[in-house]
Amino acid sequence: MQDENVKVGLIGLGYWGPNLIRNFMSAGQCKLTAIADLQTEKLEKFKKLYPGIETYSNPTDLINNNNIDAVVIATPVFSHFSLAKAALEHDKHVLIEKPMASSVKEAETLIELASKWNKLLMVDHTFLYTGAVKKIKELIDNNDIGKIRYIDSTRINLGLFQPDINVLWDLAPHDISILNYIYPEQPIAVHAVGICHTSNDIENIAYLTLKYQNDMIAHFNCSWTSPVKIRKFLIGGDKKMIVYDDMEPTEKVKLYDTTYDYKNKDDRRKILVDYRTGDIFVPKLSTTEALVGVVNDFIHSIVNQTPPISNAALGLNVVKVLEAAQQSIKQKGKEILIPNTKA
Amino acid sequence: MQDENVKVGLIGLGYWGPNLIRNFMSAGQCKLTAIADLQTEKLEKFKKLYPGIETYSNPTDLINNNNIDAVVIATPVFSHFSLAKAALEHDKHVLIEKPMASSVKEAETLIELASKWNKLLMVDHTFLYTGAVKKIKELIDNNDIGKIRYIDSTRINLGLFQPDINVLWDLAPHDISILNYIYPEQPIAVHAVGICHTSNDIENIAYLTLKYQNDMIAHFNCSWTSPVKIRKFLIGGDKKMIVYDDMEPTEKVKLYDTTYDYKNKDDRRKILVDYRTGDIFVPKLSTTEALVGVVNDFIHSIVNQTPPISNAALGLNVVKVLEAAQQSIKQKGKEILIPNTKA
Amino acid sequence: MQDENVKVGLIGLGYWGPNLIRNFMSAGQCKLTAIADLQTEKLEKFKKLYPGIETYSNPTDLINNNNIDAVVIATPVFSHFSLAKAALEHDKHVLIEKPMASSVKEAETLIELASKWNKLLMVDHTFLYTGAVKKIKELIDNNDIGKIRYIDSTRINLGLFQPDINVLWDLAPHDISILNYIYPEQPIAVHAVGICHTSNDIENIAYLTLKYQNDMIAHFNCSWTSPVKIRKFLIGGDKKMIVYDDMEPTEKVKLYDTTYDYKNKDDRRKILVDYRTGDIFVPKLSTTEALVGVVNDFIHSIVNQTPPISNAALGLNVVKVLEAAQQSIKQKGKEILIPNTKA
Amino acid sequence: MQDENVKVGLIGLGYWGPNLIRNFMSAGQCKLTAIADLQTEKLEKFKKLYPGIETYSNPTDLINNNNIDAVVIATPVFSHFSLAKAALEHDKHVLIEKPMASSVKEAETLIELASKWNKLLMVDHTFLYTGAVKKIKELIDNNDIGKIRYIDSTRINLGLFQPDINVLWDLAPHDISILNYIYPEQPIAVHAVGICHTSNDIENIAYLTLKYQNDMIAHFNCSWTSPVKIRKFLIGGDKKMIVYDDMEPTEKVKLYDTTYDYKNKDDRRKILVDYRTGDIFVPKLSTTEALVGVVNDFIHSIVNQTPPISNAALGLNVVKVLEAAQQSIKQKGKEILIPNTKA
Repeated sequence: MQDENVKVGLIGLGYWGPNLIRNFMSAGQCKLTAIADLQTEKLEKFKKLYPGIETYSNPTDLINNNNIDAVVIATPVFSHFSLAKAALEHDKHVLIEKPMASSVKEAETLIELASKWNKLLMVDHTFLYTGAVKKIKELIDNNDIGKIRYIDSTRINLGLFQPDINVLWDLAPHDISILNYIYPEQPIAVHAVGICHTSNDIENIAYLTLKYQNDMIAHFNCSWTSPVKIRKFLIGGDKKMIVYDDMEPTEKVKLYDTTYDYKNKDDRRKILVDYRTGDIFVPKLSTTEALVGVVNDFIHSIVNQTPPISNAALGLNVVKVLEAAQQSIKQKGKEILIPNTKA
Repeated sequence: MQDENVKVGLIGLGYWGPNLIRNFMSAGQCKLTAIADLQTEKLEKFKKLYPGIETYSNPTDLINNNNIDAVVIATPVFSHFSLAKAALEHDKHVLIEKPMASSVKEAETLIELASKWNKLLMVDHTFLYTGAVKKIKELIDNNDIGKIRYIDSTRINLGLFQPDINVLWDLAPHDISILNYIYPEQPIAVHAVGICHTSNDIENIAYLTLKYQNDMIAHFNCSWTSPVKIRKFLIGGDKKMIVYDDMEPTEKVKLYDTTYDYKNKDDRRKILVDYRTGDIFVPKLSTTEALVGVVNDFIHSIVNQTPPISNAALGLNVVKVLEAAQQSIKQKGKEILIPNTKA
Repeated sequence: MQDENVKVGLIGLGYWGPNLIRNFMSAGQCKLTAIADLQTEKLEKFKKLYPGIETYSNPTDLINNNNIDAVVIATPVFSHFSLAKAALEHDKHVLIEKPMASSVKEAETLIELASKWNKLLMVDHTFLYTGAVKKIKELIDNNDIGKIRYIDSTRINLGLFQPDINVLWDLAPHDISILNYIYPEQPIAVHAVGICHTSNDIENIAYLTLKYQNDMIAHFNCSWTSPVKIRKFLIGGDKKMIVYDDMEPTEKVKLYDTTYDYKNKDDRRKILVDYRTGDIFVPKLSTTEALVGVVNDFIHSIVNQTPPISNAALGLNVVKVLEAAQQSIKQKGKEILIPNTKA
Repeated sequence: MQDENVKVGLIGLGYWGPNLIRNFMSAGQCKLTAIADLQTEKLEKFKKLYPGIETYSNPTDLINNNNIDAVVIATPVFSHFSLAKAALEHDKHVLIEKPMASSVKEAETLIELASKWNKLLMVDHTFLYTGAVKKIKELIDNNDIGKIRYIDSTRINLGLFQPDINVLWDLAPHDISILNYIYPEQPIAVHAVGICHTSNDIENIAYLTLKYQNDMIAHFNCSWTSPVKIRKFLIGGDKKMIVYDDMEPTEKVKLYDTTYDYKNKDDRRKILVDYRTGDIFVPKLSTTEALVGVVNDFIHSIVNQTPPISNAALGLNVVKVLEAAQQSIKQKGKEILIPNTKA
C-alpha cells in the first residue's frame, strides 16, 4: 500500500521557516521530509531535532528530489520567483511566503506555470486564517455592516529595518491581503508617499491610499519607527462599522452599531446627515493558531484539488497594489492606475 | 480715572462663542461689553444671563462701536475675512476662530492690515494652550527628543458633517497648528487625498502628508466617520519619541526613550540600524482650561504690545497648508508646492 | 389660579449643593425658592446668580418657612438627622444626600416620621440614576445574567480625606446602594477591615464583605489613597456576567456571555465544572445627567404620591450595612450580623 | 575527568512540569537526566522528544537513583512534603513548586531536614524572577517609594477550579511571595473570607487581609470566576506609589510620584493632609523568561552553596499566611494570629 501523505520540502530557515516546520510536522495528511537552507548550521540544528529529515544546502537539490510533492518557500522575496518557478516546473505544488513575488510580471508568470502544470500555487497570507479575520469575513458576508465605505489601517511599531524591501513590502501585504479577502472590488488607483531615514532608499515609513470605482477608500499607515505598537483596522459600512485591534488580547473585533447616512435635499448644499451610535457586539473568536489553518488549507487543497482561501489570484492582487504603490512613492505620490485583474 | 480694561466685543454665538464668552467674563484686565449674532433669540438668552451686555443683530454695528477695543470673531470660516478686515479698519484688535481665513490671500491681507493699523491679530488655535502641547513644546525645546524625523496624527470620530467646509478645514487646523508650534521648519510640499460620502463634494475623510527640505515627514488622518474616537499624535525624534494621546484622561503625554539610528557602511545596501527601547516618562500636565490661556494671551498681548503664542503668522502657515492640501485633493493627490513663508 | 409647582428649599452649599441647585433650577413642576448655609458669602454668591432666591444663614428659618413644600439636605452627614427630622415635622417632603443618616436608629426614626406625617422621604443615591446602573438593572430584571453569585467592587483613587467620616461612609454608599437596587436579597452579615494612616482614627482604606443566606458574596474595596482611579464593579451570574467600569468614557457596561457551572458527581471531591466564554455585548447607555433623574424622581414622586427609586427603605438598608461594617472594623474584622429589614 | 554538571530529576509532568523540563534542558551547569510521572503515556511522549532521558513511573525510584543530585517536584501540593522529604533524606537538593507544602508543620520539617543534610531547599515562586518584580524590588530597595503603607492585589480570571486546593492556595502564593520579597516585615494577623460555589467546600473566591505591627495593610482579591482577567498590584509608599499591572504587554510597572502625607495639629480631629500627584516613570523591564531565572538560581545556589532568592524561609512564610488564612475562612473571617517567624 502506498503512502497517501503529501511529502513536503521546505526552503528557508529564517524567521518564519521554523514556524512552518513546527506546523507541518504536526499536521495531518502530510509529511515534512526535507529542508533546505544556505547555512548548514541551521540545517544541523533542525536535523538534531528531527533526525529523520533530509537536509539540503542547495535548494535546487531539494526541488529536484522526485520524492517531494510540495515545496514551501520561506526565503527573502527576491528569490521567490526563481524558486517557485523551478518547483512548479519540477511538478511540485508550491506555498510561498508573502508577498508572492517582487513584481506583477513574476506573479503572473507563476500563475501561468501553475495552470500549465496543473499544480497548486498558494501564498502564505497568514492573517486570513486568524480567528479575527475569519469572523470579520463572516460578519461582512452576512451583510451585517452593509456597503463598505472605507477601510483604514495602522500597522506601526519599532520594527526591524529590512535590508532588501521597504516597509510597504514588509508590512502592507498583511493589510492588503485582508482587504482583498473581505472586499470583492479591486482598486483602480493608488497614491503612496514614504520616507527613508537611512541612506539606502529603503522607506521605513509609508502611507498608501487606494481608490475604487465607487466611493470606497482604503488607507494604510505603515511604519517601522513607532515607539508604540499599533495594529488597528477600521471598516466603515453604511449599516455598521468594525474595529479590529490586533493588540487587544481577547476583544480583537468589535462590531459597532454606529454609522452615518445622508439624504440629498433639493439644494446640493443642504444635506441631511443621520448619525447613529448604538450597541457594540464583541464576538468570541476562534483561538486556533492561524498557521495551522494555512498548512491545513494547503494540504487539503492539494489532496482535494480545491482552491485555497489564500490563492494565487489574491496573492497577485496584493503584488499589483504593492508595485503600483512603489511607483507612486518614487514619483512623489503621483496617482498610479492599477491594471485590471482577470478575476 | 480711566477704565484700563480692554473692552471686548464678540461676534458669533454658535458652538464655540459661548465658551469664549464664559472665559472673557472671568478673565482679568478686560471686559466683555457687547455680543453680536444674526439670531436674536441667542442674543436674548445671553442678555438674560449677563444683563449689562450690549447686543447686536448686525455685526457691523458692533464693529462700528467706538467703545470697543477688541473684537472676537467666532463665526463660520467664510465670514472671518470680511469681519476681521472691517474690525481692523475700525481700529480694533482681533481674535479669530481657527482657521484664520478661507484662503492664503485673505490671511495675508489681514496680516498686512494689522501691521498697517498696528493692531493685534491673533488666531484661536486653542490646542497650543493645553497642558499637553505646552509640555511637548517644553520637551522639544529642551532637546529631549533630538531632531524630529516624523509626525503622525490621527484625529477621527463620528463627527458632525459640516455644511460649508470639509473635514480637512474642520479638523486638521488643530494638528497643523500644533505642528507649526513645535516644529520650526515650514513644509515645502503637500499631498492629500480625500473622499466625500455625500453628494456635495465636501470630503468627510482626508489624508494629508507634508514634506520638508530635510528628511522629516508629517501625516494627518482626519475623519468624521469613525465609530471610535482617536486623538493620537506621534512625534519621532532621533533621541526619543513622544506619544500624545488626547483620549487618555490624565496620562496624555508619554516620552519614550525609544528610537533608532543608523550607520552607513561602505556598501550602500549594508546599513547598520541601532534600535533602542527604554524607560518611559509621563510628565504631569497643567490642567488649566486651554481657553483661559487663549483669552489671557490675547488680552496680555494687547496690554503689553507683545506677540501672542498663537500669532497671525502661525495662523497664516496653517491656511497655507490647508489651501495647498485642498488643491491636492481636488487634483487627485498631486504634489502641491507650498509657497515660501516670510518668517 | 394657584401655583402648582413644588416649592423647594435647599440647605448646604458645599460640594454637591450647587449641582443640586443647578438641576432644581432647570427642572419642571418645581421652583427652588430658598437656600440656606451657615456661610453668608456662599449665600451672597448664589443670590447674585439667582436674584429671586431667598437666603437663610440659619437652616431652621428655611425649614420654618411655610411657603416651602420640600427641603433638600446637602449638609455633612452628622446633621442629616436633625435637619430632616425638623423638616418632616414641619410638614416638608425631604431629599437627603447620601448616606441618609449616621445610624440605623436615626434612619428608622426618619422613616417613621415620614410615614406619620405622610411625607416623601428620599435619599440622593445618584448612581441609581446613571445610564449605566439603569441598564444593569434592566439586564438583571430581564434575567440576562441569571442568579447572581458574586458582586465585587473597587472604588479607589487619591481622594480627599474627610474630617468626620471614614472612607467607608464616604465611598461605599455608592456601591451598597447599587447593590441594593439590583439585588433583591438583604445581607445577613458583614466583615470589614480598615486602616487609618492619619492619627484621628478615620480609616482611609477599607475592605468590606457581605454574606447572604444563599451562596452570594459581595466585596467592596474602598480607598482614598490610590495613585490611580479605579471604578470597577463586577457582577457574576450563573448565566452571564457584567463588568461595569465607570472610568470607560463610553463602553461602561459590558455583558459577558461567560460563566461557570458545576455538576455534582457521587463523589463529593469529583466535581465537574463547565466553563464558558463567549461573545460580549456592550449596550448603548443613556447619557442624561444622573442628577436630572434624581430631581425629576423627587418632584414626580411628590406630585404623584408614588415611591421613588431611591426610596428611604433603600437608604436605610445602606446605613444598616455601613453601621455593621463600622462595628466590624472597630472589632478587627469580626463578623457582625445585620438585623432583619422590614421590607 | 568528572562531569561537573548538576544532574537533575524531575517529578510531575502536569501543567508546569514541561516548562521546567524545557528550561532545565537549555540551562548551563546542569543536566536533566530523569523524569517521573504516574502516567506512562506522558513519560513516553517526553522520551520521544529527549531520547537520552530516563523515565520512572514511580517517583520513589527516581529519588533512589544515586546518580541524581537534585530533584524538582512539580506535583500536586498534597504530595510535596512526602516527595521532598524522601529526596532530602536521599541526599538530594530540592526545588518544589509553589506552595511549598500543605502546612506550616510540613514546611518547617522540610527546612529542618535540609539543614540537617546540608541540602538546598528552594521553592519555585516564579514571579520573583520576572523583570517586573525585580524592578519593583530595585525601586523599593533604592528607597524610591519610601515607607510602604499598603499593598493591594487583584488576581482574578475565569480559572480552572482545582479539585484539591482552593483559590487561595492556588493564586495567593504568587502575591504573598512577592509581598515577602519586597516587604521585610512579617504580618501579625490575617482575616480571610471566601465562598464556594460548588458543593465540595473548595472556595473559588477569597479575600485576604494581612495586618502588621505598624500601620501597613495588605489585601488580596483572588477569584477563579471573573469574566475578565485582572492582575493588578498596588504598592503605596509615603514618597511614591507603584502600580504593577501584569496584563499590560510592556508597561507593566509604573512609578507614580503621587502620595499623601499628614501633619497632626493640636486638635486630633484637625488633620492636615497633603496630596501630591506628579510625574509617572515607566521603567524598561528585563524580558528574560522568569523560569530561566528560577532554574539558574537553583543550579547556581547548589554549585556555589549560596542562598537563592526564592529560599525555603520565604516559602515557609507564604505557607504560614495561607494556613492562617484558611483557618480564618473556615471561622467566618475571624482574625487569626500568625506565629512568629524565626528570621
